[in-house]
Amino acid sequence: MLENMNEKCAVVGIFGHEEASKLAYFSLHSLQHRGQEAAGISASDGKKLRTIKDRGLVTQVFDQNKLSTLSGRSAVGHTRYSTAGDDSILDAQPVFARYDLGEMAIVHNGNLTNAKEVRDALIKKGAIFQTFMDTENLIHLIAKSEKEKLLDRIIDAVQRIEGAFSLVFLSRTKMFAMRDRFGFRPLSLGRLQNGGYVVASETCAFDLIGAEFIRDVEPGELLVFEEEKAPQSIKIYEPQPKRCIFEYVYFARPDSNIFGQSVYETRKNMGAELARSKPVEADMVIPVPDGGVPAAIGYAQESGIPYEMGIMRNHYVGRTFIEPTQEMRDLKVKMKLSPMVDIIKGKRLIVVDDSIVRGTTSRRIVRMLKEAGAAEVHMRISSPPTTDPCFYGVDTPNKEKLIAANMSVDEICEYIEADSLAYLSEEALLRSVNAVDESYCTACFTGKYIV
Amino acid sequence: MLENMNEKCAVVGIFGHEEASKLAYFSLHSLQHRGQEAAGISASDGKKLRTIKDRGLVTQVFDQNKLSTLSGRSAVGHTRYSTAGDDSILDAQPVFARYDLGEMAIVHNGNLTNAKEVRDALIKKGAIFQTFMDTENLIHLIAKSEKEKLLDRIIDAVQRIEGAFSLVFLSRTKMFAMRDRFGFRPLSLGRLQNGGYVVASETCAFDLIGAEFIRDVEPGELLVFEEEKAPQSIKIYEPQPKRCIFEYVYFARPDSNIFGQSVYETRKNMGAELARSKPVEADMVIPVPDGGVPAAIGYAQESGIPYEMGIMRNHYVGRTFIEPTQEMRDLKVKMKLSPMVDIIKGKRLIVVDDSIVRGTTSRRIVRMLKEAGAAEVHMRISSPPTTDPCFYGVDTPNKEKLIAANMSVDEICEYIEADSLAYLSEEALLRSVNAVDESYCTACFTGKYIV
Amino acid sequence: MLENMNEKCAVVGIFGHEEASKLAYFSLHSLQHRGQEAAGISASDGKKLRTIKDRGLVTQVFDQNKLSTLSGRSAVGHTRYSTAGDDSILDAQPVFARYDLGEMAIVHNGNLTNAKEVRDALIKKGAIFQTFMDTENLIHLIAKSEKEKLLDRIIDAVQRIEGAFSLVFLSRTKMFAMRDRFGFRPLSLGRLQNGGYVVASETCAFDLIGAEFIRDVEPGELLVFEEEKAPQSIKIYEPQPKRCIFEYVYFARPDSNIFGQSVYETRKNMGAELARSKPVEADMVIPVPDGGVPAAIGYAQESGIPYEMGIMRNHYVGRTFIEPTQEMRDLKVKMKLSPMVDIIKGKRLIVVDDSIVRGTTSRRIVRMLKEAGAAEVHMRISSPPTTDPCFYGVDTPNKEKLIAANMSVDEICEYIEADSLAYLSEEALLRSVNAVDESYCTACFTGKYIV
Amino acid sequence: MLENMNEKCAVVGIFGHEEASKLAYFSLHSLQHRGQEAAGISASDGKKLRTIKDRGLVTQVFDQNKLSTLSGRSAVGHTRYSTAGDDSILDAQPVFARYDLGEMAIVHNGNLTNAKEVRDALIKKGAIFQTFMDTENLIHLIAKSEKEKLLDRIIDAVQRIEGAFSLVFLSRTKMFAMRDRFGFRPLSLGRLQNGGYVVASETCAFDLIGAEFIRDVEPGELLVFEEEKAPQSIKIYEPQPKRCIFEYVYFARPDSNIFGQSVYETRKNMGAELARSKPVEADMVIPVPDGGVPAAIGYAQESGIPYEMGIMRNHYVGRTFIEPTQEMRDLKVKMKLSPMVDIIKGKRLIVVDDSIVRGTTSRRIVRMLKEAGAAEVHMRISSPPTTDPCFYGVDTPNKEKLIAANMSVDEICEYIEADSLAYLSEEALLRSVNAVDESYCTACFTGKYIV
Repeated sequence: MLENMNEKCAVVGIFGHEEASKLAYFSLHSLQHRGQEAAGISASDGKKLRTIKDRGLVTQVFDQNKLSTLSGRSAVGHTRYSTAGDDSILDAQPVFARYDLGEMAIVHNGNLTNAKEVRDALIKKGAIFQTFMDTENLIHLIAKSEKEKLLDRIIDAVQRIEGAFSLVFLSRTKMFAMRDRFGFRPLSLGRLQNGGYVVASETCAFDLIGAEFIRDVEPGELLVFEEEKAPQSIKIYEPQPKRCIFEYVYFARPDSNIFGQSVYETRKNMGAELARSKPVEADMVIPVPDGGVPAAIGYAQESGIPYEMGIMRNHYVGRTFIEPTQEMRDLKVKMKLSPMVDIIKGKRLIVVDDSIVRGTTSRRIVRMLKEAGAAEVHMRISSPPTTDPCFYGVDTPNKEKLIAANMSVDEICEYIEADSLAYLSEEALLRSVNAVDESYCTACFTGKYIV
Repeated sequence: MLENMNEKCAVVGIFGHEEASKLAYFSLHSLQHRGQEAAGISASDGKKLRTIKDRGLVTQVFDQNKLSTLSGRSAVGHTRYSTAGDDSILDAQPVFARYDLGEMAIVHNGNLTNAKEVRDALIKKGAIFQTFMDTENLIHLIAKSEKEKLLDRIIDAVQRIEGAFSLVFLSRTKMFAMRDRFGFRPLSLGRLQNGGYVVASETCAFDLIGAEFIRDVEPGELLVFEEEKAPQSIKIYEPQPKRCIFEYVYFARPDSNIFGQSVYETRKNMGAELARSKPVEADMVIPVPDGGVPAAIGYAQESGIPYEMGIMRNHYVGRTFIEPTQEMRDLKVKMKLSPMVDIIKGKRLIVVDDSIVRGTTSRRIVRMLKEAGAAEVHMRISSPPTTDPCFYGVDTPNKEKLIAANMSVDEICEYIEADSLAYLSEEALLRSVNAVDESYCTACFTGKYIV
Repeated sequence: MLENMNEKCAVVGIFGHEEASKLAYFSLHSLQHRGQEAAGISASDGKKLRTIKDRGLVTQVFDQNKLSTLSGRSAVGHTRYSTAGDDSILDAQPVFARYDLGEMAIVHNGNLTNAKEVRDALIKKGAIFQTFMDTENLIHLIAKSEKEKLLDRIIDAVQRIEGAFSLVFLSRTKMFAMRDRFGFRPLSLGRLQNGGYVVASETCAFDLIGAEFIRDVEPGELLVFEEEKAPQSIKIYEPQPKRCIFEYVYFARPDSNIFGQSVYETRKNMGAELARSKPVEADMVIPVPDGGVPAAIGYAQESGIPYEMGIMRNHYVGRTFIEPTQEMRDLKVKMKLSPMVDIIKGKRLIVVDDSIVRGTTSRRIVRMLKEAGAAEVHMRISSPPTTDPCFYGVDTPNKEKLIAANMSVDEICEYIEADSLAYLSEEALLRSVNAVDESYCTACFTGKYIV
Repeated sequence: MLENMNEKCAVVGIFGHEEASKLAYFSLHSLQHRGQEAAGISASDGKKLRTIKDRGLVTQVFDQNKLSTLSGRSAVGHTRYSTAGDDSILDAQPVFARYDLGEMAIVHNGNLTNAKEVRDALIKKGAIFQTFMDTENLIHLIAKSEKEKLLDRIIDAVQRIEGAFSLVFLSRTKMFAMRDRFGFRPLSLGRLQNGGYVVASETCAFDLIGAEFIRDVEPGELLVFEEEKAPQSIKIYEPQPKRCIFEYVYFARPDSNIFGQSVYETRKNMGAELARSKPVEADMVIPVPDGGVPAAIGYAQESGIPYEMGIMRNHYVGRTFIEPTQEMRDLKVKMKLSPMVDIIKGKRLIVVDDSIVRGTTSRRIVRMLKEAGAAEVHMRISSPPTTDPCFYGVDTPNKEKLIAANMSVDEICEYIEADSLAYLSEEALLRSVNAVDESYCTACFTGKYIV
């Protein structure tokens, strides 16, 4: 029920398939949970790149006609999340450009931490910026690189940028996929049934199009795709893995396998760790749907306390512009979630959720459960307190709005009106993801940013 | 995952509240799962009835402007399911008419078994029918009744109709709610916080608007609502309860309480009965979401086999008009449901679903799970084989299309490519719902229709 | 530029053509100026009637799919004008009903003056009314007639109604077309190229579909269409022609031929009469587009004063919800009409319009022209002062809102800020239409209604 | 009835008004005839530029909410025509960019003849191009200019481009308006009632917003707008006027005053010249609406042959996807234009149109008139044969598709099935526009392009 933090995007690349743009379309559909604001695909037929992008869900942006104009054996695609109020279609991806070596299209998931410096330097040299996307930096760097070959220019360019980036580049005849040295955001490689290749933010995209998972693109690795060749791997950087642990906590789809393990299993681990470390006597374990489901199953299995569906998610939410009446408390959350009154009445509940960002939604949920007759509500959060904003591609509120940055756990517990509240510790979270060394970025819980 | 049987409608009535149409709107929103094709509300301000109805979801049909024209302290509302291809807006409800006593609006959930005879008799006497709804019969019967008072006419009219009906009538100053003597379809009575009343198909409508559940409207009971009075109960018929058991199996929302008990608890009972009667050795119990979730939880608790989320439901389905490529098998089901590959690979699965209608979806699901690596797939259905169509308000395919009407359980098992298949027995189902005597209609499993 | 009076509808019937509904569709498109609110078509394939109707223009309501479901060799169609705020789709036509002789669909242009009495009588006998259309009366009268044959029932029914009606009835195998004895509203008969027939409100519908005009349906005449037969004519009433003279003044399309003569020629006659009877010295004659164009041409030809395009109509009007700034006077009219500043500056203008209803638009136009520099503005209206509402099928404002019912011509002239104002006299108008005896209804100018 | 040549855009700039974006909105509405594909506005509040642009008409792109975000005292706006099939929203204007001096937005009407060379040179130096608009060149040239001040850079930049351009630039605090030395496309300067300024493609934009025409921006002139100052005029080039004569023939709105004279008067002159030089005996002069109206009035006045409305334009055209039946000839033109059968039957017609591009529409019109009974059809075209494509901002078909490039006048006459055909001569056209020296571009008639 995380409402205030959002993954910014998904990327996909298809290489070596007659229906490349169609496969990109279906892959993006599987990745729709990573961005619902805009969608786009660029395809190359070897001579020319064509791009279609617009506001809306993948199924809204594309129809058979549009897709058929995106002919060719390679394609890159993107879905985008947008911060409220910013509905500029101009900031949709792929970013397309003509430059001295021809044409290119880029899709990008992540956030560049030195975007401003790079941009200012470029602007000082006469460059113009027509969008507000970091990705535009990259295009300029490639276009302005003094290297001759595109591959060398890409290497040149990515060495100038810092931060989080899972990127796919498309030229007329080649495709390139790259992850930053820290591997913040996921990017996986798969094989199409006809022998072509796919790269995508999550493996759930592979299943729909019948592709087989090969491996993750490695942190710091650049993959080069050319017709009639196996993908060529170039190690641009020594990997210093700092994978985004929040992908496991919330963003990724539970049926994906990212950073080498199952998202669902990992979430169940978190729940089990939570059960071991933050036990409480209760009658049932219930998830806040859908985010809390896997951890709640893990908690229930570990604790032996029955798993129940205590809150129902309504799938016909829609937008209403009708003002509630006086009698309707917490309308907004109740239109989306309903308490299972008969189940929870008089019961002691362990309510499992993935995180608490601003606290307002959690408070509404606790109130709703209490009004429905719950005897006790014990909130268990399958991640540590979210205390710090993300600079690596996640849209987070300002620090002032992060409740855990401003209140102690006890104060939060009081604020959300729960009978008890416990978070998973950082150590337990790292155990859940089988972390070795310091291979995960936990900055949103610790404030320890990579310099 | 029941795709081929559909509840036909939901009804709601609000009496004695300044914002009656607004409460009807939010109630209908909670009942949206019972019909997504059209929605409508009629409201009375004591002098005049006003009706707005149109194709679409409740949130699409109404906006602030429209709702504000529906002024008055009483309102009735309806959502409708429509059979494919029939998109006539004319068959939306409420049905409104002017007649010799003034104006009335009726909403109806159910199906009249003698509709044709009644209509033919009315037509013979010069009546005209402008819609294809059974409900039009009722309006004629009331208008043509020789009784003087509306109440007497309604009694007159409902005695002429047979079959399933949960009805709410609105006149300028009164509201009437009625269930047929068998009580096929649910209808509950609640109290608004300001002292007014609500009747609705399911109690989940009460929670959102802050109403309190009083009791079910009884089979054969007519409730009369007048300003400044408590609802008056009139027993039109001796109750002969034959409640639709499929409301428990599939239609009703799990957070509703219908026919006197919790839908969720009842589904869990079905799962537990299934575990006891149709056990099988396996590694995990997984539901077909969302319908199979409560029964799967019940099965897992009873059997001690772990409950897992083995299939994920994708909430961004939308409609696609893009043809799949050759590599994409079973695209339609896969866009909606995805297998949790890492969880189910090599595992023996008990897959719990609420019912099998035509068998095609079940086959797609089994195939999908096997392709994802499941070692064994044991289908467990929380209801008996669906062998007969419904004539009491559920949209069912013809008998020829009901797989269980044409194949044995073994044949179905082979058809859907499962390793084993077992249904809940009729007796066990009746135990699950705590049925006394023959108080439930099980015609869709037994062909035993009320004469 | 008549904005406050509106023709209520157009009707069309096609008989004996494989693509009857398609011809109805294109005919309705030609009649779109008579109603833009809703459109509908019913077609019969000899066994069953099918109806599609909805809000919107003809091209919006129908697509290839919908039209293809309306199969059969006969069809009736309707476009409707709706008074502001009343957007009930339920009041769209054709009206369809099942009754004791089978099925029928009716389309109606006009207004029944005894509708209330008939309806009250029907309601007293137990009939119900589900719409607010007069047309529903007719269906009841036919259904309740004690005659055996449909033809006799129709005769029975039309003898019970009074007022204005141009009607087309469709049964499974026949079509009937009828005009009231006064022939208020037009209805013409044409022959399709394949030998089938068409009836339509105006002959402009014939041209598009390649039909040939035969003659008008006569006042009081009922035409019966059967396969393999020529249309049979039945004189129900002795004709007492009282044709709506406003059809000539404003409603009908200038390329139509109604009531036996060209609409365009007739309007030119009005302009010529106006020039002869209400001359004024001026530099140019300009029309208020588009309504005033033919009369202005007639005025100019007769007077010898040059015809000029002094006001331009903007075709990209659309709806704007943006409030004008302080500087923008008379925004509403100016977005639709612009003065030709260079032409009219310093000039004495004769401005020809078809009528003045409330006076506000005329005032805005005069002001606009004066602000643009016109030296003098002489309004010439090609009809007499509109003093009385219409009860025969035209939507007119209440008498209090008709400026000519409340002010003298001099007062109106002052109100609209013109230098002079003159209307066409009733006599001159009747001359323009070549009226014989009292064959035209002029009630909106004289208040002399047919009893 | 010109269907195959289209003006590419309109531009507008507002400076010094609290509601600058609102005035830009209404101005664009008046200029909608110059481009219906997309619309956009950028506004500056002195600190920041904000841009909204999208596909659609001005009234569709903007609502009150969007307009209110475009705060500030200066704004530039654009409407765009798009060639069929190219629906890329990316090529909408204003073009916005951040660069070393801050932010700018540019709107452009015209076409740069050296766009490719400039772009290739820029790309060679590392620039990237993200759109397919010439305008992007300008942004780069300004950004890369080595001058310090924006004014100097603009001067620098416009000296590097060739071809047709009427431009408006917006920076945070200033606005600049510029016409190329030839003054191909119009651009006029007006004064707002509050003392601010407006520049717009046509003066019809001034009337709606209550602005007063001052004068044209001169060919080669750059106007600089700053708060608290009168606009400063800088002569960048010696004017070599080559105004687009087709603006008079077809593009501009008849109520505009461009290049120093009234468009309507000029078109009447063309008609009068045509009457003098290409007389023919006939019964009436009729225009092809709406384009041919002014010239037909001129022709009729000069020749003394009566002006009639012989063809009616249908305003409810819409798009239909229904295939015509066999009987419907020339459906496409007939849905838009209808012959006034009663007027033209047996008559000799002079039909005045502004131009013939491909000939297909003219042929359909002639056929339609003949089928309607015209005895003779004499086409008179108020411009010379269109033999050559335009490179200065008009979208023209390829030379192969221009009928006059491939056939003699006699052949065209035969092709369009007219009884006679005559064009206005180049000399007569130049007389009509009161051309002095060689101040007009007539390349589309002569192939004489400016080098």
